[in-house]
Amino acid sequence: MTHSGKSPRIGVFDSGFGGLTVLSALLRHIPHACYTFLGDTARLPYGSKSRRTIAHYASEAAQYLVNEQGAEYLVIACNTASALALDAIQEAVPVPVLGVVEPGAMAARAASQTGDVLVIATAATVQSHAYATACKTQGLRALEKACPLLVPLVEEGWTDHPVTAQVIDVYLNELRREAKQEGLRYDALVLGCTHYPLLRPLLEKAVTPGVRVIDSAEATAETAARLFGQAPAVRLTAPSASGVETGLVVRCFATDSVEKFERLGSRFLGRPVGKVELVDLGG
Amino acid sequence: MTHSGKSPRIGVFDSGFGGLTVLSALLRHIPHACYTFLGDTARLPYGSKSRRTIAHYASEAAQYLVNEQGAEYLVIACNTASALALDAIQEAVPVPVLGVVEPGAMAARAASQTGDVLVIATAATVQSHAYATACKTQGLRALEKACPLLVPLVEEGWTDHPVTAQVIDVYLNELRREAKQEGLRYDALVLGCTHYPLLRPLLEKAVTPGVRVIDSAEATAETAARLFGQAPAVRLTAPSASGVETGLVVRCFATDSVEKFERLGSRFLGRPVGKVELVDLGG
Repeated sequence: MTHSGKSPRIGVFDSGFGGLTVLSALLRHIPHACYTFLGDTARLPYGSKSRRTIAHYASEAAQYLVNEQGAEYLVIACNTASALALDAIQEAVPVPVLGVVEPGAMAARAASQTGDVLVIATAATVQSHAYATACKTQGLRALEKACPLLVPLVEEGWTDHPVTAQVIDVYLNELRREAKQEGLRYDALVLGCTHYPLLRPLLEKAVTPGVRVIDSAEATAETAARLFGQAPAVRLTAPSASGVETGLVVRCFATDSVEKFERLGSRFLGRPVGKVELVDLGG
Repeated sequence: MTHSGKSPRIGVFDSGFGGLTVLSALLRHIPHACYTFLGDTARLPYGSKSRRTIAHYASEAAQYLVNEQGAEYLVIACNTASALALDAIQEAVPVPVLGVVEPGAMAARAASQTGDVLVIATAATVQSHAYATACKTQGLRALEKACPLLVPLVEEGWTDHPVTAQVIDVYLNELRREAKQEGLRYDALVLGCTHYPLLRPLLEKAVTPGVRVIDSAEATAETAARLFGQAPAVRLTAPSASGVETGLVVRCFATDSVEKFERLGSRFLGRPVGKVELVDLGG
């Protein structure tokens, strides 16, 4: 049996449903794959948890996607898990694993003229300094800032609310002061959290003119198309007559709170998420 | 062996460290007890989780406090767990268990002249309608509203920030409109979340004049002093010469994120929390 005519199975994992912004980008870049999305909503948010706990939870989720759902590729659509647990996940499963941090740093490298960039993310992602490390590998200096209020504001649906604009101003002004103190001449702002693409319009208005906003979700999907596209399973997914191969196949699973996932998920995916199935990872 | 001269051991449980506001009130009302506080920080927030998951987690935590820490009384200093899992916790342990919802409703009954009250809380607490049910038992009509942004604002330390005042105004204005539609003549606002006492100054300014703000944490501590005070262990805790009996004994445990607990906990407890010990509940 060859891979010929078979759609690649891509597992997409997040602690919640924010990673649906990454799935949305993947659907644009690799439209003929079969996707299984798993949100570990019973144990979110990962952002306030330790590296050990995050590695444990994320590895369990990755094994579920590979062993139970047959994923041939994994995208860790969660900045915190990518920052703190990518090595642990790679060790836990025998398939290629792509996180969101490295693609974000590579996109920042492509966008920045000055070599100085800003990164906004959750507290745990910032504390891990994963973006600073990935940016340094790309020859960039990165200043990172935790913005803990932005995720709850997005989940409250206040993506175009004056309060959210003020909160963004508070955070960006603090970041500007820190950048000035450290002598950074930044020209890019990396969105280091999968919720933040929904705030892109407000963030574009709030940044200093000339500063480019870099979306890790988009950068990750581009990288996935390039990396996974070299493997037979993806190379051979040209549209065919079979419904399974050409149809849009997305299944969503959550470890809890299916109702909230279904209610809010479509905002992140940019289309209806459909029925979300409950799965027990034993947490 | 009798209980004579022995300090009662009170276990206090929360999904995070917000319940430290309840512990703070307990320390004022039952100052000579020995307290063990457990924050299930690895699995917070409970507010977005299902009843089944919350009951499972909270029962595990209650059993830890009773079986491992020798708690003779339990205070569930978490509105979500009190609302969704008090029965399950009662079944899981052989000691008296007190939640925060019923004392809050009783305090509202004592404060309200009109018999109509407002309740603000997390999404899960509101969805459970635990306050409406408890208020109804007290002969009160209650209108409940979820205020998901208030917990993150408190945890960001913005307890006196203009943005927080605006968010409170948005929520209270929506609540006023709903109350008007339903013809409620409310004169009390119940704080149905243990984080909210830290916002009391802003809330007192924001409520309609004549509306009393009711703190469930304070009401719970008063009820605990009355209920547990009838049991021998508490009756016999008058100050003595022994350090163990008269000294302030508080031990804090968390299932994760000890650093955040230690950094933010003192704001909630109103005094330093000291060293927080890590415990694994197997989640």
